[in-house]
Amino acid sequence: MNTYRLNTTKHSEMVDITEQVQSAIAEQGIESGIAVVQSLHTTAGITVNENADPDVVKDFLRRLEEVYPWQHEKDMHMEGNTAAHLKTSTVGSTETILIENGKLVLGTWQGIYFCEFDGPRQNRSFAVKGIS
Amino acid sequence: MNTYRLNTTKHSEMVDITEQVQSAIAEQGIESGIAVVQSLHTTAGITVNENADPDVVKDFLRRLEEVYPWQHEKDMHMEGNTAAHLKTSTVGSTETILIENGKLVLGTWQGIYFCEFDGPRQNRSFAVKGIS
Amino acid sequence: MNTYRLNTTKHSEMVDITEQVQSAIAEQGIESGIAVVQSLHTTAGITVNENADPDVVKDFLRRLEEVYPWQHEKDMHMEGNTAAHLKTSTVGSTETILIENGKLVLGTWQGIYFCEFDGPRQNRSFAVKGIS
Repeated sequence: MNTYRLNTTKHSEMVDITEQVQSAIAEQGIESGIAVVQSLHTTAGITVNENADPDVVKDFLRRLEEVYPWQHEKDMHMEGNTAAHLKTSTVGSTETILIENGKLVLGTWQGIYFCEFDGPRQNRSFAVKGIS
Repeated sequence: MNTYRLNTTKHSEMVDITEQVQSAIAEQGIESGIAVVQSLHTTAGITVNENADPDVVKDFLRRLEEVYPWQHEKDMHMEGNTAAHLKTSTVGSTETILIENGKLVLGTWQGIYFCEFDGPRQNRSFAVKGIS
Repeated sequence: MNTYRLNTTKHSEMVDITEQVQSAIAEQGIESGIAVVQSLHTTAGITVNENADPDVVKDFLRRLEEVYPWQHEKDMHMEGNTAAHLKTSTVGSTETILIENGKLVLGTWQGIYFCEFDGPRQNRSFAVKGIS
């Protein structure tokens, strides 16, 4: 298992981690199988989405904020980040990606993202494990 | 594979099943790999979220109900539980969690939840399988 | 790994792919383990949901469109399909299903769906890999 740390710089942010996941798989020597990528937080998730036009990420985060607004008069959780918990379970804490010939199987536009929903934060982390 | 049954007591409810998943992994003797937890229903899912403040779960279920309200004038499904189907696919039917040294790899606040979206129900079930 | 191609016929559509996934597992000779099903697109996902009443799928797609409407005045992504990217990450790009005795472990009403969110399209594809 490889664990990676990162610092996020915005309140909501999608960080492309495809290269780290590929590196972990190479280091672990997985030729064929799956890569499991897990966020170790409840206010940050992992998703696969478009890696080409950066506007997709901007639209994505703004739309998700509209569905789960940060401020909500009925929220009881004292920390005030209920919306981040919902966004995390919506995109999911974990992603599984197929591996063939030592490479992640990804469609032309697919990239793997660490999704910060309650930043900016120091020492966010995610773990990667390949299974043959 | 270990299968667990549970009875739910509310219409919407998140039941912490982290201990059962850990027990299944121990029983299956998985030292390093992944645990896959699958709900066997289409109106109940599995998610990873905060296990500390119970208000997170209350906010979570109330917010999800606002996004996918139980009553909807356009719904055609006779059983009347369309919202539960949407909530299930949103959080997902399955979760995958990493395992190291025989233990689930979970961040400080991460717990695994069985999410009832159309309760209360008797004999709900989920299955757990560890893969090395 | 088995890769399947399909053509979709509507703008939003859920295609039941349970049989293909079961065939792939049989062909790969997986007796016990997991099946990982991955969409190779960022505007089409994979989910597990009800396979009995076709009205569930109709309600499901209409409700998802209400949460993530196709038209949105603030969207910046030139291609105009931001909603499809959000729907894909909401249901997820990948599903993992347990396997026992060479068969997918599915509850009575569970089926596996390829979810088209930006169709109709030719040559959509998904990949299936079994892990023991």
